Amino acid sequence: MVKLAILGFGTVGTGVAEVLSQNAQTINAHAADTIELKYILDIRDFPESPFADKVIHDFSVIENDPEIRIVVETIGGLRVAYDYTKRALLAGKSVVTSNKELVAERGAELIKLAREKNVNYLFEASVGGGIPIIRPLTQCLSANDIHEITGVLNGTTNYILTRMQKDGVALETALKEAQENGYAEANPSADIDGPDACRKICILADLAFGHHIAPSAVTTEGISGITQQDMQYAKDAGYVIKLLGRVVRRDDGRINILVAPHLVPMERPLAGVSGVFNGIVVIGNAIDEVMFYGRGAGKLPTASAVAADVIDAAKHLVSRKFIDWSDDAPDFVADTNEMIYRYCVRLGNCTAAQVLAVFPHAQSVTETPEYTAFITDPASARDVERKIDRLCADGAVQQSRIRILD
Amino acid sequence: MVKLAILGFGTVGTGVAEVLSQNAQTINAHAADTIELKYILDIRDFPESPFADKVIHDFSVIENDPEIRIVVETIGGLRVAYDYTKRALLAGKSVVTSNKELVAERGAELIKLAREKNVNYLFEASVGGGIPIIRPLTQCLSANDIHEITGVLNGTTNYILTRMQKDGVALETALKEAQENGYAEANPSADIDGPDACRKICILADLAFGHHIAPSAVTTEGISGITQQDMQYAKDAGYVIKLLGRVVRRDDGRINILVAPHLVPMERPLAGVSGVFNGIVVIGNAIDEVMFYGRGAGKLPTASAVAADVIDAAKHLVSRKFIDWSDDAPDFVADTNEMIYRYCVRLGNCTAAQVLAVFPHAQSVTETPEYTAFITDPASARDVERKIDRLCADGAVQQSRIRILD
Repeated sequence: MVKLAILGFGTVGTGVAEVLSQNAQTINAHAADTIELKYILDIRDFPESPFADKVIHDFSVIENDPEIRIVVETIGGLRVAYDYTKRALLAGKSVVTSNKELVAERGAELIKLAREKNVNYLFEASVGGGIPIIRPLTQCLSANDIHEITGVLNGTTNYILTRMQKDGVALETALKEAQENGYAEANPSADIDGPDACRKICILADLAFGHHIAPSAVTTEGISGITQQDMQYAKDAGYVIKLLGRVVRRDDGRINILVAPHLVPMERPLAGVSGVFNGIVVIGNAIDEVMFYGRGAGKLPTASAVAADVIDAAKHLVSRKFIDWSDDAPDFVADTNEMIYRYCVRLGNCTAAQVLAVFPHAQSVTETPEYTAFITDPASARDVERKIDRLCADGAVQQSRIRILD
Repeated sequence: MVKLAILGFGTVGTGVAEVLSQNAQTINAHAADTIELKYILDIRDFPESPFADKVIHDFSVIENDPEIRIVVETIGGLRVAYDYTKRALLAGKSVVTSNKELVAERGAELIKLAREKNVNYLFEASVGGGIPIIRPLTQCLSANDIHEITGVLNGTTNYILTRMQKDGVALETALKEAQENGYAEANPSADIDGPDACRKICILADLAFGHHIAPSAVTTEGISGITQQDMQYAKDAGYVIKLLGRVVRRDDGRINILVAPHLVPMERPLAGVSGVFNGIVVIGNAIDEVMFYGRGAGKLPTASAVAADVIDAAKHLVSRKFIDWSDDAPDFVADTNEMIYRYCVRLGNCTAAQVLAVFPHAQSVTETPEYTAFITDPASARDVERKIDRLCADGAVQQSRIRILD
């Protein structure tokens, strides 16, 4: 018998309680033990819930109960979640979480603490919701030198971009819809502006490359600048637009890491990742390319990943899983502007002839009354910017500039 | 220091030696130990190989060397591979394999033997080549009741079908090409007729549902009957044709399992799995749908999966991994003809009017001088067959009948 507590009875916490209860037989068989939910910690009461009798309000009850071996943290955020996680680990309990913000910001410290206490800190649900990615990356692909990880990591923005692309609606309309459907928060900034995807690509980079990457060190661009013109041009040129988190190992051993909208060639697997789904491509020197695809969010898919970690923690109560990374390394993250990309550029008040004078190898050049759009040669952001500046000096106005995933 | 031996120095065996050598630093870091290749067993010598000095010809040297803790079996087939695997396990060594035939046929027995000796028998590479699927299925999705697994499991047939679909070549031409490119054997029957995919879906079913499924119990249809007419009709109706391995849990607790060509709707993720790539969709009650995509064969991708198992075996020299299934259960596999499918049917010497008289709800009915093709309502194979028999009694000739993945 392994007893656990859930901290935070919101969407994911409720899902975990439900999955543990509904799939108890399967879960206990896999754990080769009986897993029992003993407490649910929340500031609220839930008199209508079938789990009402497990709800408590005082964390110290959990902290001081030696029967509790596993704590599931589904509070989210950095404050209370951090405090309770630390105290649970210090009390010798394994902690399982879906809290990407906490893992991305303080993962190195919490893993170190778990190691010192010979318990586990597991977070499969923090990236890709229910999609298995943390274990595959750290175990199944562990014989590879990882070259790159690129993923559609945020379901909300992918829903919006898919609606814009397939149905021609404006970004604002699609966002409102996403909010009505519960895919987006009232304040959608963490999705729309990229921080959510940024935390996830940081966690993947931490695991793949062994150093903590601070989210603040990552170039992060959101989707708010994407228009129907961009969508239409991309489509005509054989691309779809996706918000990608991307980390690439460089020849000098450092990495480039960013979150930004990209044009993705339609024949690439990531181009087929539509709606609220996520897809994560990992490229290694032996495996070549693999993709993991599924529901990147939602109550039950996320709970599925949390519950799998619970099973794993129950099987490894006194032996540590080999999930690890070290502190920040100075200069490990290289300048994003050095990355070589082709760009899709849209300029107002500029003719195709003017474009071709400065970008003689431009491709898919399309002149309309409102703009001229084209695709550059592969170049650094600086080189492209310098050339665009020349056109702007002659009166052109940059309307958009989007990277292309080649 | 953990020492290992490779049995069989063919394509995969060579790949394993190369990956262990090239990625030694990464591998040793993940194993938290040094993994050293001590012997390579083969009947041949390889004087030109960088590993020539490790080649031996007598298995008993490996069997009797207490330093050898892990044996990699990349011989293939059922005879020698079975004998050596058994002897290695009996000698207390963990065994890692890519041999899908052996796992599908004798997995239950070998896992049982491994359990008795407290060692591991691992086979991530046996399904999906380098794609992580065994661990994700047994660990990451372990909190789910699995409903269905459906996959493009054979790269050779998928290459052929993709060439037929995208470039309009005939099956024979595409097969010849596949043989020239090394994707298909001189005797392509194991690919073309479905046995290879059958072994893989059996292994996945074994793991997901806990009972050994004998490959001989699985309805297995290959692709040799697929023509350009089928391809063209499928395309016009919004489908692509894929050879799928499929296992579905029924409400009565039994399973349906088959390997057969299917029409896959173009918007489904599996439809985008092209060329030699594999894709495996798993549907569980919490996770909904996840897909694993990548190279399902090839020297280095397969070696990547073998090497990951080697790392795992090295980390679990004296503790068992929870991979398990029991012997065959009588009546566990239900009659495939009971499965409810829509079918795409093509009949010669039959008009659209005649079809509609028997199949009043037929969809996408297309009459040409050579045939009339249509899509049935969902029905059992028996019901559809009975109706087609009525048309055949009036002179119609069945040219093809293909299931549709809905």
